Amino acid sequence: MQTVTLIPGDGIGPEISAAVIKIFEAAKVPVKWEERNVTAIKGPGGRWMIPPDAKESMDRSKIGLKGPLKTPIAAGHPSMNLLLRKTFDLYANVRPCISIEGYKTPYTDVDLVTIRENTEGEYSGIEHVIVDGVVQSIKLITEKASKRIAEYAFEYARNNQRNSVTAVHKANIMRMSDGLFLRKCREVAENFKDIKFTEMYLDTVCLNMVQDPTQFDVLVMPNLYGDILSDLCAGLIGGLGVTPSGNIGANGVAIFESVHGTAPDIAGLDLANPTALLLSAVMMLRHMGLHPHADKIQTACFDTIRDKKFLTKDLGGNAKCSEFTSEICRRVQDLD
Amino acid sequence: MQTVTLIPGDGIGPEISAAVIKIFEAAKVPVKWEERNVTAIKGPGGRWMIPPDAKESMDRSKIGLKGPLKTPIAAGHPSMNLLLRKTFDLYANVRPCISIEGYKTPYTDVDLVTIRENTEGEYSGIEHVIVDGVVQSIKLITEKASKRIAEYAFEYARNNQRNSVTAVHKANIMRMSDGLFLRKCREVAENFKDIKFTEMYLDTVCLNMVQDPTQFDVLVMPNLYGDILSDLCAGLIGGLGVTPSGNIGANGVAIFESVHGTAPDIAGLDLANPTALLLSAVMMLRHMGLHPHADKIQTACFDTIRDKKFLTKDLGGNAKCSEFTSEICRRVQDLD
Ligand SMILES: CC(C)[C@H](C(=O)O)[C@@H](O)C(=O)O
Ligand SMILES: CC(C)[C@H](C(=O)O)[C@@H](O)C(=O)O
Repeated sequence: MQTVTLIPGDGIGPEISAAVIKIFEAAKVPVKWEERNVTAIKGPGGRWMIPPDAKESMDRSKIGLKGPLKTPIAAGHPSMNLLLRKTFDLYANVRPCISIEGYKTPYTDVDLVTIRENTEGEYSGIEHVIVDGVVQSIKLITEKASKRIAEYAFEYARNNQRNSVTAVHKANIMRMSDGLFLRKCREVAENFKDIKFTEMYLDTVCLNMVQDPTQFDVLVMPNLYGDILSDLCAGLIGGLGVTPSGNIGANGVAIFESVHGTAPDIAGLDLANPTALLLSAVMMLRHMGLHPHADKIQTACFDTIRDKKFLTKDLGGNAKCSEFTSEICRRVQDLD
Repeated sequence: MQTVTLIPGDGIGPEISAAVIKIFEAAKVPVKWEERNVTAIKGPGGRWMIPPDAKESMDRSKIGLKGPLKTPIAAGHPSMNLLLRKTFDLYANVRPCISIEGYKTPYTDVDLVTIRENTEGEYSGIEHVIVDGVVQSIKLITEKASKRIAEYAFEYARNNQRNSVTAVHKANIMRMSDGLFLRKCREVAENFKDIKFTEMYLDTVCLNMVQDPTQFDVLVMPNLYGDILSDLCAGLIGGLGVTPSGNIGANGVAIFESVHGTAPDIAGLDLANPTALLLSAVMMLRHMGLHPHADKIQTACFDTIRDKKFLTKDLGGNAKCSEFTSEICRRVQDLD
């Protein structure tokens, strides 16, 4: 039994977490949940940090599953999502976007993965007022982080039977920073001759993406570009409600999360769609080496969606969250 | 007769410029072309500049139409497109994206305009190596430029019978810089009570855009976001081959341009599609107040595309550039 730290989150977080727990039970997944609440607290010196018991649990388990967290309104309060990524140095954000059979979208054959540098770039948080009315934000690109994410992307491609990696950049404009990022990608590509390497401007990627997403496979990019492209690609397959996400750090540490909002308007009404969190949990199982369980749950989930009989409202159906969940459980057990 | 500075550009530039000249003749547009070549030269102190005769022509005519320019490979050489925007302080980049009837794309009812701040932001060109392997790029946002572009966007909306302006930003991450940009948009919005104002994160815009572009109208944003979104939106309606663009400065100065590449592989073969440059020229005519001519040419162009008999290869037909052009000329004359 491996322990997993569960951060149910806010709004619909607890409901969709309960759904995942139920489905894991039906699939007899050998994990033990350790539930932790995460609200930022002010530590010594006034720095925001996550509660010690959550930190301690993650340090021990190394694996987290997390629902949506509301961003506090207090001035100067950091996004909890960013704080978690930072606290555990989760340097790679991985989002597979694969068209879901039976869920109608303008695109049918999307099958790609965005890999986003998760620690620096435009997210450095360094900003200044130069003179009144003139502000600068600093985009920070380092050789170390660029190399690390490039290596992650190529390893990912190799380990997941993918054929190509595209580096996404604007080195024609940010010649030094994106130039450094791109150079590292090129260098790492040299060590992965089995994977095709291409490079493309971010604007060109966006244009080509909406025209024909099937041309893309693995994409690797600096932080902000990943924020943008991962959402764009999620849109192609039906939105954040069906798109999984993983934040990967060194030495196996990782947090998997649904990246949709907390949907306070439907919280507690048994109407939420747990798909994004469930598919994130499936990614987690693969990360833990529990492939048969991952496959079983994924099959049951996609079969339920394709079958259309028990869909939540956002997926076009009338089922409650609990009904959708029960149907997946039933199918998981049938697969045994 | 007003004078227009024509910069035919490289690759297919001369052919598509010739097509536009022909169609303008057929439509009896009262403009006189003044053709100028634009290759960057090194001025006093080694600064890159555009040739004096091109500068002088633009200074006089105030209006330019420009084909694609190849980006020189020489190290340190600036993009000619950027140099032109800078030389004439063309602070607003305007790209209407409207679905073209008869040209099949995954979307049918796109009708929006991206308005991009064209002078600062991530395009400041300021970058440093901090220590070996650590690079910073500076994103510069000023009150002046933010206010100016926000005002432009609202004026544009009002003058073009559009209902809403959406400010696109990441002020949750770049709180000071995008925060300043957003604040200026909010302030300007106060003076345009007839136009609905909304604000949205860039990632959310991208996601919503590919799910349902019809929800957007006028979008205003900092430089890089505009680079990305304008290309994304061009993709929705068929790509850069059919998307017009205008760069607007103060006191009526403006350069209209096709933003596709120079397509050296088909240059000189009479295969190029002049639509993007032609529709940019139509934008130019409206800017000059020549609305009847603009309407006539636009109708003839769209009718030709809808009719499908004389389409260039990229539009799915077999016609040569000259045949497509002749058909538009014929229709322009029929409309008299
Ligand atoms: C919540 C927000 C800070 C975050 C980001 O901008 O990275 C989100 O958009 C994401 O993609 O995870
Ligand atoms: C040519 C290039 C420098 C330019 C940009 O990045 O702005 C282009 O992509 C554009 O959108 O006009």
